[in-house]
Amino acid sequence: MKQPKPAGTQARAQTAQSTTQTATLAEIAREAGVSAPTVSKVLNGRADVAPATRTRVEALLREYGYRRRRAEATRSPLIDLVFHELESAWAMEVIRGVETVAREAGLSVVLSESAGRLTPGRTWADQVAARRPHGVVLVLSDLDASQRALLTSRSIPFVVMDPAGDPGDDVPSIGATNWQGGLAATRHLIELGHRRIGAISGPSRMMCSRARVDGYRAALETAGLPVDPELIKAGDFHHEAGYRLGLELLRRPDRPTAVFAGNDLQALGLYEAARELGLRVPEDLSVVGFDDLPVARWVGPPLTTVRQPLMEMAEAAARLVLDLGREEQTSTATRVELATSLEVRSSTAAPRG
Amino acid sequence: MKQPKPAGTQARAQTAQSTTQTATLAEIAREAGVSAPTVSKVLNGRADVAPATRTRVEALLREYGYRRRRAEATRSPLIDLVFHELESAWAMEVIRGVETVAREAGLSVVLSESAGRLTPGRTWADQVAARRPHGVVLVLSDLDASQRALLTSRSIPFVVMDPAGDPGDDVPSIGATNWQGGLAATRHLIELGHRRIGAISGPSRMMCSRARVDGYRAALETAGLPVDPELIKAGDFHHEAGYRLGLELLRRPDRPTAVFAGNDLQALGLYEAARELGLRVPEDLSVVGFDDLPVARWVGPPLTTVRQPLMEMAEAAARLVLDLGREEQTSTATRVELATSLEVRSSTAAPRG
Repeated sequence: MKQPKPAGTQARAQTAQSTTQTATLAEIAREAGVSAPTVSKVLNGRADVAPATRTRVEALLREYGYRRRRAEATRSPLIDLVFHELESAWAMEVIRGVETVAREAGLSVVLSESAGRLTPGRTWADQVAARRPHGVVLVLSDLDASQRALLTSRSIPFVVMDPAGDPGDDVPSIGATNWQGGLAATRHLIELGHRRIGAISGPSRMMCSRARVDGYRAALETAGLPVDPELIKAGDFHHEAGYRLGLELLRRPDRPTAVFAGNDLQALGLYEAARELGLRVPEDLSVVGFDDLPVARWVGPPLTTVRQPLMEMAEAAARLVLDLGREEQTSTATRVELATSLEVRSSTAAPRG
Repeated sequence: MKQPKPAGTQARAQTAQSTTQTATLAEIAREAGVSAPTVSKVLNGRADVAPATRTRVEALLREYGYRRRRAEATRSPLIDLVFHELESAWAMEVIRGVETVAREAGLSVVLSESAGRLTPGRTWADQVAARRPHGVVLVLSDLDASQRALLTSRSIPFVVMDPAGDPGDDVPSIGATNWQGGLAATRHLIELGHRRIGAISGPSRMMCSRARVDGYRAALETAGLPVDPELIKAGDFHHEAGYRLGLELLRRPDRPTAVFAGNDLQALGLYEAARELGLRVPEDLSVVGFDDLPVARWVGPPLTTVRQPLMEMAEAAARLVLDLGREEQTSTATRVELATSLEVRSSTAAPRG
């Protein structure tokens, strides 16, 4: 592992490379009324700085847009991977993708969960600053402005995978073609002859949920079918929501003959609701999921679903963040969407009668 | 984070605590023909030591049973979690358990995969030595003697969860009552009236697989039923093995009326084999799994299975490794087995006719 250079060497490197930034660091120290080593301690995430001092220094670092020189920022052989929540095989595919790229690069993966909050906690940001990873991959999780500034000031690059919200044009992100997936799933049902098609979606604050439902709407509209808002139910991405919202849809007197679920877990919840009501899949109800988790092939009947290449997306996110770390310039705006594809199995069929 | 104490304090602590150990470090340096700082560099996992020197020093550290003093070993706020392979919802439950304990303790989790090898690679051990985590939790993965010595010499405690092999009496480990689980699953089938009961097991080099099958045998023997070795098939723990070995069992003219599968994924593979042969679960075939992954409740029919408290086991392993790190003595032999329990759902019924 790299060790900080002795002070003499560092001073020479500073003069040669960027006099402006040395001035900025000194300026920040002066303006904060502290010594330059104290500013360094804050940058290194050291615990031995008074909270008030740290807050003042952080605010000034942000204000001046201070960015640590690459050469000075020694890195640990780590990639940080942050989840909104660690649940389901979905997360496992993502972990495997990041782990694969990390191993190739001789790095280890540090895993965190922002635990239901959509932005990771303050402590997390401090820990990241202290351990100085090669980069951060955020999954369904956004950074707030001050956390973003904190990573930027330490020259720690980050990439958002499948953003929950709108990550902003300046944030590099990797997603999937969610809209296209919703379109393909619904067109498949229309082509089978379904006319009343319901949708169960994920949380509407997540852009991926919105895009899927918009694709569903576009398929109905371009086929000249009415969009009935009563047939669109939003919940979280868990099995339980699919079950509960599935019961709501299937208990209606004018129940849909097919449902496009927001993800595979919701689709499995919907299977359970159908079983409970004595409806058979696909004879009485066609079901399409989203994700193509391994379990989609194993359930009875095997689930027709929109494949999202989660492992490949995670690999792409990890590669991108390492690429960003290698370049001096980290402001390259990048938004990549990998293609989804419909996997037709046995949960969809023509409606009866 | 702890900071190394200034030299004066450290020297006093050494005199008070263990003069022998100071002598040992110097002795190792002398015997290796290097300086004491070089021995320190090896202990810290620094890259700037010639490979031959490092090997010589490591061998001497091992030979002398050198153990770094706790006070000297500054720690990063990390726990290492090492998997044999990162697959299935099984691993996710374990990750969630370790992550929960880590978060409570203000630590982050570093995830590695030993990728099919049963002991993590040399590079991994070096990286662990360099990043100095609070402890290491190994899942279905053993350390070889030199890796164990390496962690011990740095005072990095480790715990093995659900050991693949025999971890040895001196290695703290957390497991589940696999034998009891196999017994309970098979007794349940016998009580339903089954007489020809097959078993699909995991790899026989893994102690957990052996224990489950031994429990199955004990149930048959204590019920006065013959154990037919033809009805016991071993494979890996994946869905595919359950499918393939399931076909072998179910194509026999004297096919079993019930099968105890080595885990839930194998049970789902067995479901698929039964479907392919036109056999209904549970009417034509009763199936019991092992683990109780979330998916066991979601498949059709919901799977009767032996619940292994994976999250709790992972939490216990993480707590144990942190406890070991807090004490001066790390040689406390500990082997804990958490209880399994049978969850009866809809995949088991009395045999027909």
